[in-house]
Amino acid sequence: MKILVLNVGSSSLKFQLIATDKNAIDTNSDHRLARGQIERIGGEAIVTLSAGNAEPTRTTASLRNNADAVEYIIAWMIGGDSGVDITSAADINAVGHRVVHGGERFKQSTRIDGNVRRAIEDLIELAPLHNPHNLRGIAAAAAVLGTHVPQVAVFDTAFHQSLPETAYVYAIPYQFYRRYKVRRYGFHGTSHRYVSYRYHQLTGRTLEQTRIITLHLGNGASACAISAGHSVDTSMGFTPLEGLVMGTRSGDLDPAIVEYLGVKEGMSGGEVDAMLNKQSGLLGLSGVTADMRELLAEESANNDRRSRLAIDIFCYRARKYIGAYIAALNGVEAIVFAGGIGENSPSIRERICRNMDWLGIQIDADRNAILKDGAEGRFDRDGARVELWTIPTDEELLIARDTWRVVNGEEPHL
Amino acid sequence: MKILVLNVGSSSLKFQLIATDKNAIDTNSDHRLARGQIERIGGEAIVTLSAGNAEPTRTTASLRNNADAVEYIIAWMIGGDSGVDITSAADINAVGHRVVHGGERFKQSTRIDGNVRRAIEDLIELAPLHNPHNLRGIAAAAAVLGTHVPQVAVFDTAFHQSLPETAYVYAIPYQFYRRYKVRRYGFHGTSHRYVSYRYHQLTGRTLEQTRIITLHLGNGASACAISAGHSVDTSMGFTPLEGLVMGTRSGDLDPAIVEYLGVKEGMSGGEVDAMLNKQSGLLGLSGVTADMRELLAEESANNDRRSRLAIDIFCYRARKYIGAYIAALNGVEAIVFAGGIGENSPSIRERICRNMDWLGIQIDADRNAILKDGAEGRFDRDGARVELWTIPTDEELLIARDTWRVVNGEEPHL
Repeated sequence: MKILVLNVGSSSLKFQLIATDKNAIDTNSDHRLARGQIERIGGEAIVTLSAGNAEPTRTTASLRNNADAVEYIIAWMIGGDSGVDITSAADINAVGHRVVHGGERFKQSTRIDGNVRRAIEDLIELAPLHNPHNLRGIAAAAAVLGTHVPQVAVFDTAFHQSLPETAYVYAIPYQFYRRYKVRRYGFHGTSHRYVSYRYHQLTGRTLEQTRIITLHLGNGASACAISAGHSVDTSMGFTPLEGLVMGTRSGDLDPAIVEYLGVKEGMSGGEVDAMLNKQSGLLGLSGVTADMRELLAEESANNDRRSRLAIDIFCYRARKYIGAYIAALNGVEAIVFAGGIGENSPSIRERICRNMDWLGIQIDADRNAILKDGAEGRFDRDGARVELWTIPTDEELLIARDTWRVVNGEEPHL
Repeated sequence: MKILVLNVGSSSLKFQLIATDKNAIDTNSDHRLARGQIERIGGEAIVTLSAGNAEPTRTTASLRNNADAVEYIIAWMIGGDSGVDITSAADINAVGHRVVHGGERFKQSTRIDGNVRRAIEDLIELAPLHNPHNLRGIAAAAAVLGTHVPQVAVFDTAFHQSLPETAYVYAIPYQFYRRYKVRRYGFHGTSHRYVSYRYHQLTGRTLEQTRIITLHLGNGASACAISAGHSVDTSMGFTPLEGLVMGTRSGDLDPAIVEYLGVKEGMSGGEVDAMLNKQSGLLGLSGVTADMRELLAEESANNDRRSRLAIDIFCYRARKYIGAYIAALNGVEAIVFAGGIGENSPSIRERICRNMDWLGIQIDADRNAILKDGAEGRFDRDGARVELWTIPTDEELLIARDTWRVVNGEEPHL
């Protein structure tokens, strides 16, 4: 089955075309037929496209809206020059959408119909920056491909719906949970779930045997405690602001600082929120950049004090989450690193794992050093109590597989 | 030396009169000559007094202000009927004050002079609900006893001034630390320091050998990671709102919730702050009470669902901090419980330590059960990797000892 995976944002769209089926899922032999992204939709859009594993080509196109963008990528794929192995839009058998917020309603990936669309709409209040665009992507795909092509929603929040009450209820008046559903949802669920699935596949461990901690460290960053394949705690909360230090987000913070800074700086609540989401984290600490590679360069080339501080705080806070989740899980078999930083920075992995031997966390420097640029592998020292892994995440692949499963009436796997 | 220990709040005053000196400190043989508290100062105040270890007596008195209250307790102590072993105000050799906020300036207990008073005044902005009253207490003691009697300030924050930058800097734009000193200060420092000191005294371990985690669990609650006698991380932050679940405080929270609830409920930032400080925590979760004893009774007598949830979240969050601080310390020799709940509730200690055996935390049920009502002792199971202790805190004693040390030119001890 050929599945179009769409991730539609405010003025951007990312897509992949993936061929998968039961056998491909079981043998990890799915094919990526095409991929690309379109930025600055609404004007002269920047388009990056590649067929299979070919080098990407870059062009521009005048695209007014998401429907235009979907039409454009399909026209490109079925055009003879693209090199993509389909010849008509009818070759696309289903569409899988990344949808950010599924609230408490969606505990797994779901076939999209009118009710589901309305439910995603009802959840806009919880994800005003994401769900509206996801809905527009769903409408665009229906308009271009026809309503007979099945569409599936794969939610960032769904994997964390297994959290126990003790982990998702905040210690505020309970009526705010009842009235507004203010609770921990967690995000990056598709990534944590993929990484957990792949870990079990690589090791052959059964789900029941394992407690793992997954660290998705990218521009956004989150940690997840996974027991027997189920998320039991995660660091992002009601919104993606909580938890680890991120590129531009503060992560954990004394909540009293919000009002204090608002008064001091004459900022509205919304302005403080924007500052905590867009000008904090690595960027705010360093005053230089939100990009970890650049910070590491600043640190080593210029011995920049605040770049070092930003990196050290990023690592220290990750260590504390590892410890917290070991306590929550009563132990851990493996810690798995993913995301742009987790997959590509041996030095950050080393700094997070440094001085953790009491917990059985010990790194093998040589094994660690070679794990980058998409490599997956294990880097703990022989005899260490806790396995350490790097597993590049692949949310699009999981969206394609979930779409296949939902369309074919199979339960989504952990 | 006879030292008056004062803890002055908005309309209340707690005091003790403690006889101590070098020998008493070394041999743990300080004498508590009197203690008491006065509530509702400003009108018909409620006065509770006791000499030595006698049963407290309760009375009322018309007291306009803190100076009246200080005068009242001194008149009582030197009066022949009190049973307190002093005969004139001149028998009080020094006064030690609990001062909440010492900012970055005060890293240890300090003799109070004009400069110190002004510095405490400058810190009012960081502790508007506490420092002004502490200052009034200092003025009242000077007015009643005369300016020749030395006074010493013992700060709640001072013990945590040893935190490394990675633990005290928040991941927000760095200029907010520079400009307004927004950072983690931590509180309950006198309690954590006392408990750490007493732990070393009880075990004979040298400071260098030990990493301990202290949990001060009372109406306010905080955790502290202590390495070689120095606080290296603590759960309260810029204000006492952050960290563990408390009687009426939320502790950790997605900071985005502040603005979200403000908009939803039409509350100002100050009102949200007040809600998070006064209507949250155990009270907000249970909808019943902020008192752990009452919650435990509700749970066992009435099987009350939300009382159980409040207790479970309280314990779960404490477990996560234990794990986080084990990671921060790269191991732990002992976990020490203190504070009203920590000292008196074997069942809460048991629930916090349950299912922590992977970390070497294992309880001995019989040893745990008998530790309450001021008992100090150890309750881990034979052979467990981590010692578990209950050590009743005694902030007043440490204030008296620090006062003696400062007045006599000795360095405050860890």
